[in-house]
Amino acid sequence: MKIKLLDDLINTLAKLPGLGPRSARRIALHLIQSPQANMLPLADKLIKVGEAIKTCKTCGNYDTEEYCHICNDKNRDESIICIVETIADVWAIERSSSFNGTYHILGGVLSAIDGITPEKLNINSVLTRLSSDAVKEVIIATNPTLEGQSTGFYVADIIAANSNVKISRLAHGIPVGAELDVIDSGTLAIALKGRS
Amino acid sequence: MKIKLLDDLINTLAKLPGLGPRSARRIALHLIQSPQANMLPLADKLIKVGEAIKTCKTCGNYDTEEYCHICNDKNRDESIICIVETIADVWAIERSSSFNGTYHILGGVLSAIDGITPEKLNINSVLTRLSSDAVKEVIIATNPTLEGQSTGFYVADIIAANSNVKISRLAHGIPVGAELDVIDSGTLAIALKGRS
Repeated sequence: MKIKLLDDLINTLAKLPGLGPRSARRIALHLIQSPQANMLPLADKLIKVGEAIKTCKTCGNYDTEEYCHICNDKNRDESIICIVETIADVWAIERSSSFNGTYHILGGVLSAIDGITPEKLNINSVLTRLSSDAVKEVIIATNPTLEGQSTGFYVADIIAANSNVKISRLAHGIPVGAELDVIDSGTLAIALKGRS
Repeated sequence: MKIKLLDDLINTLAKLPGLGPRSARRIALHLIQSPQANMLPLADKLIKVGEAIKTCKTCGNYDTEEYCHICNDKNRDESIICIVETIADVWAIERSSSFNGTYHILGGVLSAIDGITPEKLNINSVLTRLSSDAVKEVIIATNPTLEGQSTGFYVADIIAANSNVKISRLAHGIPVGAELDVIDSGTLAIALKGRS
């Protein structure tokens, strides 16, 4: 193409998850065709989100406030904490509308290969939250993958050693190897109800 | 999600060609995870491209100059004009490195259903370009779809009525690397007729 600016944009788009050179070119062309209607508003939204989004100091969720709308919601049951790997998992559970407790986002899974040690995950802050008497139950909702399960066991062990809260897991019904983010809401609802 | 800013961004992303709600969420999460490294630079590039890109006054290509780098290139053969539907087609032909002439971009195809009449396409400006003696040949390179072909015939008719330049079309036949077994019978019939 030889237009450096445009090549730059296409290369940046092509690195986004799920996109490649062809889809990036298609998106770039679509945006250029209406700069005022599509391209600049998208840039504006990116800047607004990039500047406004904060990580919740309690659970690790994203929001525009210091404490996220879930932690701030008085109608949510603070006695149950659902521990998940990523924010995509929070969104998936929220879409199922079957959980009214709060969340705790680990920010990933333990992985020796990738050098993700327990210190790099948001684990210690769970213990701080558990030190208040309000919490009665912790649901381990890591993904049913090898790393997810071992992270779940690790977190459960740490919690059991430091606290007396009930520890439960999502019920069977989730296909092994799948990720929470891609599971239909019905299955997620059953898994939440059938926790043991 | 209930975070209006983020919902807004995801909805905007989901409307881009080839993306849907799920891929938009994935891209948004990826961008949020590193606002400084990914999100704001992308916004910056979008703004730069949106503000700098112009449509070439000769051929309709995009560039940062009033006349695109292809029309400006003294090494390109101005006596051949390749007429294509969209800029994506220019990029595709340029990637093949097999054409050294100039282009003319129609900006779409004739379509009664979508209300695309000849006036809405970049057709008249071809005639202006042909009025100079420099042009010897016009290659009609619209897509081999119903609309593409009828647009090609329409443009060829107009050119023939107004000018004496040679009019050619891209050869139809079997794509290199394809297997006869998977090629549609229409293409096979054309390939047989046009054997050389």
